[in-house]
Amino acid sequence: MPKVSAEHREARREEILCAARRRFASEGFHATSMQDILTESGMSAGAVYRYFNSKSDIVSAIACENMSALLDSLESYADTAADVPVAEVVVAILRGIREKHETDRVARLALQVWAESARDPELRAHFCSTHQRLRAIVRTVVVRRHPHLTDEADAVAGAVTALVPGFLHQLALLDAGATAGFEDGVRLLLDGF
Amino acid sequence: MPKVSAEHREARREEILCAARRRFASEGFHATSMQDILTESGMSAGAVYRYFNSKSDIVSAIACENMSALLDSLESYADTAADVPVAEVVVAILRGIREKHETDRVARLALQVWAESARDPELRAHFCSTHQRLRAIVRTVVVRRHPHLTDEADAVAGAVTALVPGFLHQLALLDAGATAGFEDGVRLLLDGF
Repeated sequence: MPKVSAEHREARREEILCAARRRFASEGFHATSMQDILTESGMSAGAVYRYFNSKSDIVSAIACENMSALLDSLESYADTAADVPVAEVVVAILRGIREKHETDRVARLALQVWAESARDPELRAHFCSTHQRLRAIVRTVVVRRHPHLTDEADAVAGAVTALVPGFLHQLALLDAGATAGFEDGVRLLLDGF
Repeated sequence: MPKVSAEHREARREEILCAARRRFASEGFHATSMQDILTESGMSAGAVYRYFNSKSDIVSAIACENMSALLDSLESYADTAADVPVAEVVVAILRGIREKHETDRVARLALQVWAESARDPELRAHFCSTHQRLRAIVRTVVVRRHPHLTDEADAVAGAVTALVPGFLHQLALLDAGATAGFEDGVRLLLDGF
């Protein structure tokens, strides 16, 4: 087997994920088989299975990448905007999710990944660390604006963070009309914060 | 086949659901097979399959019953307590869910049912009507306390309602410590409301 660089491996992995994203978005998650992803990527089964064991692995990798990208941009936003209100941080992440959902139907993927996380310890650990990262960003913003909230800041951050899966859940299962005003509702709700 | 009354059918159906609940709680949802439920119920396969086609049907029925019971008690609470704050209504439902989760691990079941709802139109329709019922209760309470919120009341209710699946999601996937303060966080968050 020829030696390949880490960059090459990363590029190949990313190619497979892009092929899967295109298929999931056009055909739907359940109608897409591992064979469809092979065809779309133009790679051999051997090449693809070197990176992912199953469709479920690919779905998890996509969900993790989506969340990481969102959290990276959110962290730098929360860092640079010194006195940003909690509502702005939450609305920023909701907008990012809505955009991703409009192109890639990420909300339905999220529901599958959650169900899978309940039985896969590795996926669950990854999920917990993503949750903690988001919650820490929210907590920092809460404390900066409300220095009197010390012990309670983490509980507030936990509740605020729950709006994110709550939104994904509505995007996946309700009609578009029922979720259209979500960001406005969050803004009104967190206005006091 | 002997004629049976509607009451008898309802009682048999409930017996199956009770047997399934006991097994799910003790063995876990994934480790429980349809055969385990048959054994636990003491009924024949023919008798059970007259009521439910699959384990997934049973899970959905349990989730629907749980939510209906919660909503019934919430509706009468919101009706009788004329000036109840939004936070109290939400905390009441969160407490109900936490109790159910402590006995029956309902949060993990919820995640399975959501994933299933994304592909089963009938289940999705049931889910939507449950969501709308909860949202209507919250909206009524919001409008009663904030008569100036007219058009926005539904958006606020949509965001508040998202705290419920957000909580289930945390209960299912995070350690107990990370969800212990959830109700307090919600109370602080909605205190202005």
